[in-house]
Amino acid sequence: MELPSKYLQDVSEALARLPGIGRKTAVRLTLHLLRQPEAAVLGLSDALKNMKAHVDFCPRCHNVSDGGLCRICANPGRDESVICVVEGIQDVIALENTGRYRGLYHILGGLISPMNGVGPAQLHLASLEERAARPEVTELILALNATIEGETTAYYIARKLAGAHVRISSIARGIPVGSELEYADEVTLGRSLEQRTLYTNMPMQNDSIHR
Amino acid sequence: MELPSKYLQDVSEALARLPGIGRKTAVRLTLHLLRQPEAAVLGLSDALKNMKAHVDFCPRCHNVSDGGLCRICANPGRDESVICVVEGIQDVIALENTGRYRGLYHILGGLISPMNGVGPAQLHLASLEERAARPEVTELILALNATIEGETTAYYIARKLAGAHVRISSIARGIPVGSELEYADEVTLGRSLEQRTLYTNMPMQNDSIHR
Repeated sequence: MELPSKYLQDVSEALARLPGIGRKTAVRLTLHLLRQPEAAVLGLSDALKNMKAHVDFCPRCHNVSDGGLCRICANPGRDESVICVVEGIQDVIALENTGRYRGLYHILGGLISPMNGVGPAQLHLASLEERAARPEVTELILALNATIEGETTAYYIARKLAGAHVRISSIARGIPVGSELEYADEVTLGRSLEQRTLYTNMPMQNDSIHR
Repeated sequence: MELPSKYLQDVSEALARLPGIGRKTAVRLTLHLLRQPEAAVLGLSDALKNMKAHVDFCPRCHNVSDGGLCRICANPGRDESVICVVEGIQDVIALENTGRYRGLYHILGGLISPMNGVGPAQLHLASLEERAARPEVTELILALNATIEGETTAYYIARKLAGAHVRISSIARGIPVGSELEYADEVTLGRSLEQRTLYTNMPMQNDSIHR
């Protein structure tokens, strides 16, 4: 789809490289931006440039930060005894949005996936071992995707740290809240039976996760 | 949804202002951009800045241009006797993609819409009248949306230029190619009957448009 200006073409092609944005949508977005006031377009342009120039990574948990420790690690109100291990930044955002977690995080930066050539050495596992060895840490919660890669990575970490003093738990697998049993797959339904929780333990069932 | 960095937050908020991009998609795009090489992100940033700084509008047809006349008006191979009147740049792109039109365009920059406070004075109508008065121009093809606003604008132009020497036509309204009669609305089906074309006139039925 040829656009009537090289400048529009450049914007459209750059937008079309984003995931989930096809060529038609990219053209529509480009024409929308063309109609916007200059300040709005330069705002996006500068925000992109600043993000690449200034964004930093937390030396402790590998989350993004505005320089030095991230907001979560730097917050004295967070519980330093619990570390939630996740694949990426998107998972931190999702867990923070629940408003139910006050501990710290550790971002692996991926999952073990031999198919994609990702082994344990490519992940932030050495720093996780160091953190798990610190006396104040009592529990690692593995919050990884319920996929082959996620389960493999969880198994690897659980074995690697089996001798450590920390308790290792996993987020619950089960029926999503609001969904019907009839439509759940057999594996999920089976797990939800195996890992059932006593009513007396709800809503905090930390102790029932590993039996 | 709070992001762990002000810089990411700025990008995400700017993206969420684009049409069809919600807050969740904006966060996903932001994290994708964060993972991209610096050159890709700066490419988008610079393309946006350049578009706002350098894009120009064709003094003849009001299409975007890279300076002076647009590519279409500047092309000596185009047929100067026919002008296709459209609402916006998106329509020029759509018509060019058909590969069936070799004439020029005239962009109105909107449609008459009293509900939205858009009257004839806000559109590029004076320059259309001037162009229609030129001796080499023989036909105006109105290619406007088949909506109340589009029909109103077409009617206004047809009346305004009724005394001029140019022939005024409209693109055909009818059953879209590939669709079934059963699902067509009554108005479209009625129009397709009224404006039926003789087999001998197909596929070029220019003369049958206005009877």
